[in-house]
Amino acid sequence: MKVKNIDMEASSPIVILNKKDAEELGLNPLDRIEIDTSDNHLVGVVDITDKMVEEGEIGVSGGIEEIEGLVDVTLASRPKSVEHIRSKLDDKELSEKDFYEIVEDIYYNRLSDVELGGYVSGTYTNGLSLEETVYLTKAMTDIGDIITWNDEIIADKHSIGGVAGNRVTPITVPIVAAAGIKIPKTSSRAITSPAGTADTMEVFCDVDFSIEKIKEIVNEKNGCLVWGGSVKLSPVDDQIIRAENPLSVDPKGQVIASVLSKKKSAGSNRVLIDIPYGESSKVENIAEARDIAERFKKVGSELDIKIKCTITRGHEPIGKGIGPVLEAIDILKVLKNNGPSDLKVKSAKLAEIILDMCNSKKNAIDILESGKALEKFREIIEAQNGSPKIEAKDLQPGKHKTKIRSCRSGIVTHINNNLISKIARHAGAPKDKGAGIKLKKKVNDKVNENEELFTIFAENNTKLKNAERITDGCEAVRVRGEKESLVEQI
Amino acid sequence: MKVKNIDMEASSPIVILNKKDAEELGLNPLDRIEIDTSDNHLVGVVDITDKMVEEGEIGVSGGIEEIEGLVDVTLASRPKSVEHIRSKLDDKELSEKDFYEIVEDIYYNRLSDVELGGYVSGTYTNGLSLEETVYLTKAMTDIGDIITWNDEIIADKHSIGGVAGNRVTPITVPIVAAAGIKIPKTSSRAITSPAGTADTMEVFCDVDFSIEKIKEIVNEKNGCLVWGGSVKLSPVDDQIIRAENPLSVDPKGQVIASVLSKKKSAGSNRVLIDIPYGESSKVENIAEARDIAERFKKVGSELDIKIKCTITRGHEPIGKGIGPVLEAIDILKVLKNNGPSDLKVKSAKLAEIILDMCNSKKNAIDILESGKALEKFREIIEAQNGSPKIEAKDLQPGKHKTKIRSCRSGIVTHINNNLISKIARHAGAPKDKGAGIKLKKKVNDKVNENEELFTIFAENNTKLKNAERITDGCEAVRVRGEKESLVEQI
Repeated sequence: MKVKNIDMEASSPIVILNKKDAEELGLNPLDRIEIDTSDNHLVGVVDITDKMVEEGEIGVSGGIEEIEGLVDVTLASRPKSVEHIRSKLDDKELSEKDFYEIVEDIYYNRLSDVELGGYVSGTYTNGLSLEETVYLTKAMTDIGDIITWNDEIIADKHSIGGVAGNRVTPITVPIVAAAGIKIPKTSSRAITSPAGTADTMEVFCDVDFSIEKIKEIVNEKNGCLVWGGSVKLSPVDDQIIRAENPLSVDPKGQVIASVLSKKKSAGSNRVLIDIPYGESSKVENIAEARDIAERFKKVGSELDIKIKCTITRGHEPIGKGIGPVLEAIDILKVLKNNGPSDLKVKSAKLAEIILDMCNSKKNAIDILESGKALEKFREIIEAQNGSPKIEAKDLQPGKHKTKIRSCRSGIVTHINNNLISKIARHAGAPKDKGAGIKLKKKVNDKVNENEELFTIFAENNTKLKNAERITDGCEAVRVRGEKESLVEQI
Repeated sequence: MKVKNIDMEASSPIVILNKKDAEELGLNPLDRIEIDTSDNHLVGVVDITDKMVEEGEIGVSGGIEEIEGLVDVTLASRPKSVEHIRSKLDDKELSEKDFYEIVEDIYYNRLSDVELGGYVSGTYTNGLSLEETVYLTKAMTDIGDIITWNDEIIADKHSIGGVAGNRVTPITVPIVAAAGIKIPKTSSRAITSPAGTADTMEVFCDVDFSIEKIKEIVNEKNGCLVWGGSVKLSPVDDQIIRAENPLSVDPKGQVIASVLSKKKSAGSNRVLIDIPYGESSKVENIAEARDIAERFKKVGSELDIKIKCTITRGHEPIGKGIGPVLEAIDILKVLKNNGPSDLKVKSAKLAEIILDMCNSKKNAIDILESGKALEKFREIIEAQNGSPKIEAKDLQPGKHKTKIRSCRSGIVTHINNNLISKIARHAGAPKDKGAGIKLKKKVNDKVNENEELFTIFAENNTKLKNAERITDGCEAVRVRGEKESLVEQI
């Protein structure tokens, strides 16, 4: 068949055949075909058209390696990993080889979306044992690039998400780096939250670098604060997350494999995992937090990564700003000793534990309060093409804003992470860097009737109105009488 | 945005946006958007392109209702049924309302393939209770068309698949119809088998009719033998099967809901379910067969359908021909009293039970042996635009053939349905009507070394060679010494 290239970035690579050719080959939509050229062999998932390609033509969408000219087309057998997915749905334990085959088929886009949906459903419903988690982590690591270092000790950290404004990384990393310990930190962008660390760092500097450049920056400055999505460290992670998102599933074993395969690929061997728990946080109770911590430690030890976990309170946002610019302001203020104290205390504590794991005698809080962490932060953003002279006053949140006031007096008993995130996203975060929320009250603060609880910022008025509409329909900041224990009447 | 229609029959309707617009809207592939025109409101799943549509344009693939001109585009919220799918993955019992929402979202193509994969995975892994099966069946029935009849008693039958050559329907239906009982039989085409009843009937006549025409044929002839896919009787069934196929899952409750929603929609109230069991059949043991039978009866009683189930032996193919033409030859021969006796006995037995359920005093075997069933069959194929004078000698299997011989003497202890089906499909069935297998030996037959076991027929030589290649690698017909109990050494 003659190849016709089609510019379409579908969710997974698609091969398009004319209806008549598909009938001749006995193909249905979602079947796989093998495409052979003189020097290449590919497999693609089929869609069928009446007119978009002619008989004898084959449309090939972006994502499949480049092919052109004439090719042979045959019905492909189902990839082996589909059997393993089926086994997982039958609650059977999978082998190391099974996971290598699954990860390879995901990496090469050999699975259809229905099959990927089956994979995340099976690992969610039937779970992954510790052994399976180790196999999966190894397979995810091995399919991607791996960074090697000359130093013996390489630190890293990761926070389980779900707590709004939890932007400790840009403070913790400079403290550790300033103490002389290498920490090649890669972070994600927001998927469902108002800002990922990469989105916030982008307020200061570039975050998109090659592995070579990351090595150069870290060898020179001891740390970096870059986006993990531009490098091929455990690259199937993003492909799996794409399938987890629509179903809102987040299988525990998969989370551990995702995090530790990234860390292992980055060459880190001392890793701190922060697990916030509490109402409206991802992990809702301390028993679950402890269970996750134990799993992280056990899987880590199989991978020669020394792991410590912190279980922290995640019952309200950390800091006051939520959204890229508003969080960036909090970060600069903490690095200059005048930001929100909860953000300062938590960032320093995490750095202290990391330094201890790395056998460093340096004192985290001294490094922060002496301004050495600020200096290191400025060095890192300069190495990442940002302006090292930036100050909090240079950072402006969105011009359109609304103050949200309390309809009663009392004390703040709860701030809902999910609702705060939802409001900030409707206001435009993370795409609109200046959009978000600035909290005026935190849990246990006293509030008078009509006193301000938080301000919503947006870069345009439509989005501000959207955010206001959401705010009206929920109780993001819960205010109750001082001695009142009633939360809801049902 | 300006609508650009794109001719592509994707697995589900797709909306294509330019990368820049997608970024502006904060959209990722697989997100949903709402599309509003002055008089229409639609929801579609998003793919992203660099060039296929320009900024400000929106590409719309086949499947989404027709829209044109300028439209408003906004990020849509996730359909409610995704929450129910997630609940099923958490092994929670779903309500009647939940199933109505799931079925509606599937019908209107509101779910992405990942979500559909989650649905079939969840119902497979965690199962459906009897109540859930009833709710699902009702929801699947209500979303489609429903046929009504003047007669009080309407018969129907269904066989659980998996047994090659099990083409009893074109014999059973004419017997029942000849006895004066209405039986509006709709059948499927092959998905993974070498022929569905619809594929085999197509050798004789058309199978693709509107509901009005089906009513007309059945009111006149008492029976029909048509394809179920062309009418909207429980239309989501096909959409669900499309997602079950890639994962090879077939959740029990889903099978029952699929079958009974079709029967309920067709207006039937006396239904015989045939459940073949045995090695290499879909149902492998009698305990499982009994369990399925009980569920069918219980769900049927909730829907006011009287159900009887037959548990039959499915340890080898029924009849001798496998593939559309070869099965058609068997059928004509049985109707003329000289075909394979197992096919004759089974078809008549099923008809006898159906007639009994319908309070008919007529004798099934008399109707078959007297030639009245053949006469009725010819009437039905004439009503379906076929030639009523067709004889077995008019039906020619493929010209290319190979005889497969036994490499030892002994008796046939097993014929593997799956392997026989696989060989017949590689030979070209069901698309090549003349392709398939003719068995020369059945279980318990004596065989000499080098004696023929079966013949493979194909319409072209390449496919014949493919089928031979598969045959060499397996033992489709198992021959053992007469007193030998050894099956395999491992």
